[in-house]
Amino acid sequence: MAKILRINTETKTFTFEETPESLAGLGGRALTSRMVLNEVPATCHPLGPANKLVIAPGLLSGSPAANSGRLSVGAKSPLTGGIKESNSGGFVSQKLARLQISAVVLEGKPDDDDFSMIVINKDEVEILPADEYVGLGNYETIEKLWAKYGKNTGVMSIGQAGEQRLKAASIQQADLKGTPGRAVGRGGLGAVMGSKKIKAIVVDDKGCERLSLADPEAFKVANKRWVEMLNAHPVTGQGLPGLGTAVLVNVINEAGALPTKNFRSGRFDHAQDISGEKMVENIEARGGIVSEGCHPGCIIKCSQVYNDKNGKQLTSGFEYETLWAFGAHTTIKDIDDIAMLDRLCDDFGLDTIETGVALGVAMEGGLVEWGDGPGSIALLKEVGKGSGNGKILGNGAVFVGDALGVDRVPVVKRQGLPAYDPRAVKGVGVTYATSPMGADHTAGYGVTANILKVGGDIDPLKKEGNVELSRNLQIATASIDAAGLCLFVAFAVLDNEDGVQTIVDMLNARYGLKLTPDDVVALGQSILNDEKEFNRRAGFTKLDDQLPEMFNGPFPPHNSEWDFSIEDLQETLNF
Amino acid sequence: MAKILRINTETKTFTFEETPESLAGLGGRALTSRMVLNEVPATCHPLGPANKLVIAPGLLSGSPAANSGRLSVGAKSPLTGGIKESNSGGFVSQKLARLQISAVVLEGKPDDDDFSMIVINKDEVEILPADEYVGLGNYETIEKLWAKYGKNTGVMSIGQAGEQRLKAASIQQADLKGTPGRAVGRGGLGAVMGSKKIKAIVVDDKGCERLSLADPEAFKVANKRWVEMLNAHPVTGQGLPGLGTAVLVNVINEAGALPTKNFRSGRFDHAQDISGEKMVENIEARGGIVSEGCHPGCIIKCSQVYNDKNGKQLTSGFEYETLWAFGAHTTIKDIDDIAMLDRLCDDFGLDTIETGVALGVAMEGGLVEWGDGPGSIALLKEVGKGSGNGKILGNGAVFVGDALGVDRVPVVKRQGLPAYDPRAVKGVGVTYATSPMGADHTAGYGVTANILKVGGDIDPLKKEGNVELSRNLQIATASIDAAGLCLFVAFAVLDNEDGVQTIVDMLNARYGLKLTPDDVVALGQSILNDEKEFNRRAGFTKLDDQLPEMFNGPFPPHNSEWDFSIEDLQETLNF
Repeated sequence: MAKILRINTETKTFTFEETPESLAGLGGRALTSRMVLNEVPATCHPLGPANKLVIAPGLLSGSPAANSGRLSVGAKSPLTGGIKESNSGGFVSQKLARLQISAVVLEGKPDDDDFSMIVINKDEVEILPADEYVGLGNYETIEKLWAKYGKNTGVMSIGQAGEQRLKAASIQQADLKGTPGRAVGRGGLGAVMGSKKIKAIVVDDKGCERLSLADPEAFKVANKRWVEMLNAHPVTGQGLPGLGTAVLVNVINEAGALPTKNFRSGRFDHAQDISGEKMVENIEARGGIVSEGCHPGCIIKCSQVYNDKNGKQLTSGFEYETLWAFGAHTTIKDIDDIAMLDRLCDDFGLDTIETGVALGVAMEGGLVEWGDGPGSIALLKEVGKGSGNGKILGNGAVFVGDALGVDRVPVVKRQGLPAYDPRAVKGVGVTYATSPMGADHTAGYGVTANILKVGGDIDPLKKEGNVELSRNLQIATASIDAAGLCLFVAFAVLDNEDGVQTIVDMLNARYGLKLTPDDVVALGQSILNDEKEFNRRAGFTKLDDQLPEMFNGPFPPHNSEWDFSIEDLQETLNF
Repeated sequence: MAKILRINTETKTFTFEETPESLAGLGGRALTSRMVLNEVPATCHPLGPANKLVIAPGLLSGSPAANSGRLSVGAKSPLTGGIKESNSGGFVSQKLARLQISAVVLEGKPDDDDFSMIVINKDEVEILPADEYVGLGNYETIEKLWAKYGKNTGVMSIGQAGEQRLKAASIQQADLKGTPGRAVGRGGLGAVMGSKKIKAIVVDDKGCERLSLADPEAFKVANKRWVEMLNAHPVTGQGLPGLGTAVLVNVINEAGALPTKNFRSGRFDHAQDISGEKMVENIEARGGIVSEGCHPGCIIKCSQVYNDKNGKQLTSGFEYETLWAFGAHTTIKDIDDIAMLDRLCDDFGLDTIETGVALGVAMEGGLVEWGDGPGSIALLKEVGKGSGNGKILGNGAVFVGDALGVDRVPVVKRQGLPAYDPRAVKGVGVTYATSPMGADHTAGYGVTANILKVGGDIDPLKKEGNVELSRNLQIATASIDAAGLCLFVAFAVLDNEDGVQTIVDMLNARYGLKLTPDDVVALGQSILNDEKEFNRRAGFTKLDDQLPEMFNGPFPPHNSEWDFSIEDLQETLNF
C-alpha cells in the first residue's frame, strides 16, 4: 500500500508512514482536501508553520489509464484564506504513484531564510541546500535540475514569486520539453511552498516496477473503451488537439461572454487577433508545436509550443484563460505580447489568471494604460525584481485593487474571476459564487451545457437549471480531480452513457474494488463537504458565496443580469 | 432641531433634512453607527458609491461642557471591512453643533477624478473645485485654507494617503495652532473621503448664536462640578497635563506591557529615550508647548507642540501610542526620528498606530532594518510619492504582511494592535479581540483598572474579571463617544461616585430630558449592538473576535499567556 511521505521543513527530516485506514480509497483532491481539513487549523496563517502543503497523485495516476497524470496540491490558500486544491499536468503525479507514495506533505517552517530542495527516488529522500537555484526563474531552475538529475525526472518548483510568498504565486511543473509550462496555478500555493523554503522537488521513479493492477485484463478492456471515447468526442478528439483551449476565444466571444475591459462587455473587437486560429497560424509559420500532451499518457494533447518571430520558444501551455486574462480583459491585442506575459508568469511562477485579472485592475487604477502590452510586460517584470509595484501585482487582484483604491475588482472569495462572464454563462457563474475554491471555472465548468451543448442544453442567460448544472458538475469534477484525470475527459464522459461506468471500471480493476457510479457521486460530495467544512471553520459564511457588486446591472451584448439570490446559491452545494 | 446635511458627491448637490424622530437623542458615535447600519449595505465595497461618510458632533458638543468637542466620523471601514467610528478633537464638532447640524453625510461617488471641497457656514453650503489643494499634504492644505477662510474655521482634510485611498489613511483636523495635529485616525476613513473625492471640509460658525440650553442654571451647576472633578483627578489634573499621554511610556514599560520589537517582549531597553519625561525635556529646552488642549473647551490639555533642535515646530499631538508604534515596536530609539515620522503621518494623513504597526511588520519582512529611524523616514516618504512601497506601507499592517509574506502580523479584524500587550494588560486585550472596531485601546481602555488602578484593581496578568472590565468599559466608552466627550474624562468619572450622574445632569440640562444613569448604559449597549449587527451583516463571525496565533505562548517578562476561549470572549458583548 502507498505511503505518506512527511517532510519537516524546520528540522529537514522526513518520515514515511502507512496511509491510515481513514484515508484509504482517497487520492488527488479527495486526499489533499481531507488531509488539509484534518491537519491544518482553519484559522492559521497560510504562511505560518501550521499550514501544510499536501501533494497527491490521483487514484488512477501511474496506471496506463489515458489522461490520468494530474497532480493535486492542497493547503490553506494565502489568496482566499480558505481551502485550496489546484492540479496540473507534468511528470510528478505518475512518478509519485509508481514510487508508491500517496502524498508528500510539507510541514513546519524553517527559522532561517535558507532554501532547500527535495529529491525523491526509489531508494532515498534527500533534503538538500538549494542555494544555487535561489533567485532563479522556473525556466532556469528546471533546466539546471534536468541537467543534474536527468530529463526523465519530474520537477516542481517555484520562481521568484513563490520565493517572495506572493499570493498569486504558482508551483510550476516541467512539461514534456522541460520548460515550466504546467502550472499548479490558483490560490497562491507557490507562496506556501515558499514559506516552507522549498525551492524545488525532484521526483525520479527510475528502477520502479510498473504499478500492479488488481485485474489487468479488466483494466485493459476499460482503458481501451476510455481511449475510444476520448478520441471519438468532437471536443477531446478534434477541438482541443486542433487549437488547444484557445479554440474558445472565438466561441466565447461569439456567445457574447468574453469579459472585455474588466467585465464591461462580452465582445472584444480584437478577439480574432488573440484567437486559437491566430495562435495556430503563428505556430505553424514559426515552427512550433500545435498539439502536445501536458503529461505522459495524455491523448487529448491540447498543449502546444509557441515560438517567437525568430523561431525560438516563447511559451508553452498557452491557454484560453491566459489569452483572455492578458488579452480581452486588459484589451491587449498583440498575441506576442500576451505570449511574453505568459512566459514571464511561468518563469516567475505566477498564476496567469490571477495575474491577468490583477493587471486589468491595475489598468483600472491607472498604473498601466488599457491595452498597453509593452507597459504590462515592464510592470510584470517588476515581480522578478521584487520591487513594491512587483509585490503589488504579484499578490493578485484584490491586492492591486486595495493598493490603488479601486472598487471594481472581479473576485469571489478574493480569487479573480476567469474568462467567462457569470451573467452570460450562468452555469459557470454559479460555480464562481459557490465553489469552496473561490472563483474557478474548473470547479464546475457550466460552459459545457451552456455554450458547447455537451451533456445537455441549458440557456446560459437564464437562471433556470443552472444551479443544478453547477451542482452536478462540481460533484463530478471533484471526483475527476480525485482520480487524477484531466478535467477535459468530462466532455466525453457527459456525452457517453457508459462514461462514468468506464472510470469506475478502471478504478475497480486498479484496486480490486466493487465501486458503482453512485460511489463516485458520493466521493465528489464528500470532497465538497470537506472543503465547505474547512471554509466554515475558517470563518466563511453564505455572504462569501456571492458575486461582488460590480456584477449588478445588465451585461452587453445580451444585457442579461445576475439574478441569483443568496438562498438560490446556498442550494447549490446543499446535499 | 438640528438638521442632517447630505452631500451628493456625484452630482455636487446637497440637501438639508430634518433629523427624523428615529434618530432623535443620538449624537456622535451613536448617530454615526446607527446611520451607517441603516443606510450602508454591509457587503458593499468600502470605496464604492454605496458607502457613506457620516460626520457627527457629540450630544454635548457646542455646549459649555468641558472637553465636549470630539467629532465622530463613521463609515464602513476600508481597513477592517466592518463598521468604524473614529473621533478626534479640533474645531469642527463644536462648530457643526452651533450651526445646528447633527450630521454631515458624504454620499455617492464622482465618476471623474476631480477633487472637490466643501465649505459650510451659517448662510450656505458650497461644493467647490479643490484643484489648488490636490497633491498637498495636510500642513499646507490647512495653512492655505486658514489663510483663505480665517483662523477661526474648523478644517478637516485628507493628505496624499487619503487621495490615494490607502487603508491607513486618516482625516486630519486643524488643531489650535492650525497644524494638522488632530487625527480621525483609525480604520482608513481618509480613504473613504478620498473615494468620494473630497479633499477638505471647512466649517465656519461665524454669526451663529450660542447653543440654547434647556436649563442654563442646571447646566452651569453640573458643568462646575464636572470641571472640578476633572481638575481634581490625578490623571486628568496632573499626569496628562504634565507629560501628555506620553506619561505612559515609563508606566507601561515598568508594568512589562510595552510591546517591543513586534510584540516579542514587554520591556524596551530604550524606553527612557522615548518617554514623556524625555519629550518634555526636549520641549522645554527647545521652546515648544508642554500642555495644550486638542479642542476649544478642553481643560485636560494633554496635547503639546514639539519643536526640532532649531526650535521649529516638528509635530503636535505627540501621543503615547505614536511614541510606542514608531519607537518600542520598531526599536527606533531616537525621539526626534519618531517625531518626524509623526509629522509625516499628520501631513500625508495616516494613522500613526496603523502605520507604526505596519512599519514593524515591514522590518519583520526585511524592507527596513530594525531600529533604523532614517530608513523608516525614507520609506514613509514613499507614501507621499505614491510609489509601490509607499502604497504597501500606507495600506497598513495586514497589507505589508501580505506584500512581504510575513506571518507575524499583530491585528484583530485586520486592524493593528495598539501599544499595550494583550497578554500583559488583559482587560485591554479583551477589548482588542471583541470590539466591533477591531483592535482599539480606546474602545474599552482596561489599562484603567489593570495598571493605573483607576475605577478598581483587576490583575492585568490574570483572566479573572477582565471580560467584565472590558464589557463595562466598552459600554461606557460608547456613551462617552456619543456625548462628544474626550475619553480621558473616564478616569475622573470612574473614580467619582457622581461621575456618570454629572454627565447625565449636563445632558438633561442641555436637552430638557430626564435621563438616568441607566439610560446612559442602555445607550452604550445599543451603540455596540448596532455595530455588532453591521459586522454580522458584513460576514463577521465569532472567529473574528480572536487574537491571531502570534499571541500564543508566554510573553516576557511576566510570561503571562493569553487564556481566553472563544466562548469567554463571546460573553464580552453579550447583553
